[in-house]
Amino acid sequence: MALSKLPYRGTRDFFPEQMRLRNFIFSKMAEVSEIFSYEPYDGPLLEELDLYRAKSGEELINDQVYNFIDRGEREVAIRPEMTPTVARMVAQIHREVSKPLRWYAIPNLMRYEKPQKGRLREFWQYNADIFGAPEILGDIEIIQLAIAIMKSFGANNHHFEVLINSRHFVNYIFENILKIDAERTKKLYKLVDKRAKMPSDKFSTQAQAIILDSEKSRQFEEYAALNSIEDVIKFIRNTDNEIPKQIQPLINLFNGLEDLGLKQYIKFDPSIVRGLDYYTDVVFEIFDKHPDNLRAIAGGGAYANLLSIFGETPLPGIGFGLGEVPLTEFLKSHNLLPDFSKQKIDIVVAYLDTSAEKIVLEISQELRNQKIKVEVFLGEAKQKKIFSHTDKKQPHFVLMLGSDDITNGTGQLRNLKNKEIHNVSLNNVDNISKIILNSKT
Amino acid sequence: MALSKLPYRGTRDFFPEQMRLRNFIFSKMAEVSEIFSYEPYDGPLLEELDLYRAKSGEELINDQVYNFIDRGEREVAIRPEMTPTVARMVAQIHREVSKPLRWYAIPNLMRYEKPQKGRLREFWQYNADIFGAPEILGDIEIIQLAIAIMKSFGANNHHFEVLINSRHFVNYIFENILKIDAERTKKLYKLVDKRAKMPSDKFSTQAQAIILDSEKSRQFEEYAALNSIEDVIKFIRNTDNEIPKQIQPLINLFNGLEDLGLKQYIKFDPSIVRGLDYYTDVVFEIFDKHPDNLRAIAGGGAYANLLSIFGETPLPGIGFGLGEVPLTEFLKSHNLLPDFSKQKIDIVVAYLDTSAEKIVLEISQELRNQKIKVEVFLGEAKQKKIFSHTDKKQPHFVLMLGSDDITNGTGQLRNLKNKEIHNVSLNNVDNISKIILNSKT
Repeated sequence: MALSKLPYRGTRDFFPEQMRLRNFIFSKMAEVSEIFSYEPYDGPLLEELDLYRAKSGEELINDQVYNFIDRGEREVAIRPEMTPTVARMVAQIHREVSKPLRWYAIPNLMRYEKPQKGRLREFWQYNADIFGAPEILGDIEIIQLAIAIMKSFGANNHHFEVLINSRHFVNYIFENILKIDAERTKKLYKLVDKRAKMPSDKFSTQAQAIILDSEKSRQFEEYAALNSIEDVIKFIRNTDNEIPKQIQPLINLFNGLEDLGLKQYIKFDPSIVRGLDYYTDVVFEIFDKHPDNLRAIAGGGAYANLLSIFGETPLPGIGFGLGEVPLTEFLKSHNLLPDFSKQKIDIVVAYLDTSAEKIVLEISQELRNQKIKVEVFLGEAKQKKIFSHTDKKQPHFVLMLGSDDITNGTGQLRNLKNKEIHNVSLNNVDNISKIILNSKT
Repeated sequence: MALSKLPYRGTRDFFPEQMRLRNFIFSKMAEVSEIFSYEPYDGPLLEELDLYRAKSGEELINDQVYNFIDRGEREVAIRPEMTPTVARMVAQIHREVSKPLRWYAIPNLMRYEKPQKGRLREFWQYNADIFGAPEILGDIEIIQLAIAIMKSFGANNHHFEVLINSRHFVNYIFENILKIDAERTKKLYKLVDKRAKMPSDKFSTQAQAIILDSEKSRQFEEYAALNSIEDVIKFIRNTDNEIPKQIQPLINLFNGLEDLGLKQYIKFDPSIVRGLDYYTDVVFEIFDKHPDNLRAIAGGGAYANLLSIFGETPLPGIGFGLGEVPLTEFLKSHNLLPDFSKQKIDIVVAYLDTSAEKIVLEISQELRNQKIKVEVFLGEAKQKKIFSHTDKKQPHFVLMLGSDDITNGTGQLRNLKNKEIHNVSLNNVDNISKIILNSKT
């Protein structure tokens, strides 16, 4: 029986059009990262399973990790996220290097998911982290970087927003104000998350059923309705009079981003909690504002204790991950993607007669030495066939040579964009390359 | 117990210096490929195990493949090579697209190897293939591309050579001339491979012991000593008078590459056979000429029947793989690598006093909008500390602002390369960005 031609479930074949798109996205991410002085890194595809056990909790492992036993009886996993790897790497070197460390990567990750729109088993995820920055300055920079990457694709505040919360603020609400246990806290997280999609009286009833105290329930509902950092400040002032020390950074973050002219991109949102256990302070998500597509494109947060599992002293950091799958959906739904269906070819060189083959290959070789993108039409072909090919491929130029051209030592270089025809000498490739290179500038 | 900080055995952590090196190598590969009009593609990290069973034989699977059963009871493998994937992808679309197809990829692959110098469990491999090209023209182009990639790193014929053989020629020797069975053929392959490292009388004795016929054994020794395409032609003429049809392409390949001025890079070598079953005609390897490092950096060949396992009509192709691990060793041993220890930073912007923080962040943001690579020195710091930092990081410029500068609205932009100092206005970032951008051209 013939083998399947399709890729493994939940993974993709990247044909050239899709791969050009992927390269475009990755090169923008890398370019903006370098502009922010972030340095590239990468880690291994496989890590020991214990790394994820320690960092991400059993739930992720049981549900989503591709893990197996290797031939040396080690439990290994295909990386489902990058943060444990970057923590492991930073743990190796953080004592010797000057801080802050600014790093980015675009690894391929795998999770055992039920494939659906915007969710696949294999995907790439941009990751950026800053370790050891002074309080809040790293947070400002990382969110500024996230916004700059989105803007580099032409997206603006009509397309996306950054929703921000703080674990310290969440803890303040649940521990200091509501004073309820971890289990009920978890239930309330879920309830906040569903708030936008349910009638307000149903929300009240459910909150009441969990909290069992009408005054506290009212406070919880007030929290869940907070819609801006100004609201947050008012809410705290009404309750406590003074801003608790651990919440000040959240307010400073909003002020700092406002100073940078980024207020229109950011919003306080009480529903942003982030499931992963390692976040300790600011958490944020980038949301698509398109009505068909309201969901997170990126998410991240601050962590204070990421190195502790390696027996290292704490080194606070903040970082985020931006998935290539939801980002591509986002860019498509807002029409922000260029056309990648065509390969970029400067010139197609072809021959009408085998006698011209040698000179065509030689000219091509010399043009390539000038970094000109040359496609050789291999094999002799009729003019009609060559034109039908260039109609499809749309190179900037075409040079097709017949036996007469070889005899005369001249040829016609056609600019297919402006329809100009240049008579060129075949003895001096420079006169051809100059025309092509000049047309590029 | 604290977790290990080291990467999984046979894999690597790419810290920024190593990652810049890797990015440099990959970007050269991609650049040259695009100049040759090859299009990028990629496939999934996991494939169904049957794909490798069908294509590469059980030996590779049993010894080297990372395979496991997924949660849906499928036998899957982490890709150990790219050719089966590209064949699967081409099988999907080859009926609808115009030929030839020219594709390249730089995937990460995994093999269960005993880690040693130049051999790791996780590695990247550049792959290029041309499918459906007219006979020999594709072969010429692919070897030309391989040489062009090597040359793009500054390597020349003193550093490397392309050793070429042909499966048709090998079959001609073993089937038509020696007329021996597959098992003894395999033994002789191995013997040819070891020839350079053994005394000639020992080689003769061992050949004789396998072939059991002194005239044939003499012919085999003559074959094993062939050292150039001219030798090959002489050898055939002495035996058969006429060049058999299936060997002509090998000769045409050498002629074609000679026409392109590449003769000094190529050499016929009878020891090049390539283990993989799918090669059917020309096979080649790129060898490092460094005495400490005599081994293959790349290998490839022509295949006629790669699509048959998918029930598709044959589509001949030729391709090669170039491993990033042996290539890096090669470039290092010949001193062909630039220094990647330093990050490229255009400017470090710093502040001596917190009162200057806001303006420093704003200036940085505006410079970044001009694609200038800016590192903000976060937190107020003494001048000495900032200079000690720039001594280490070596940015092109540094701008450090104190409270006086803020009051005056001016600052000193220092060019650390030529030691020039520019007095700049802080109210107009353009006068800063112009100095930086001009220094780049």
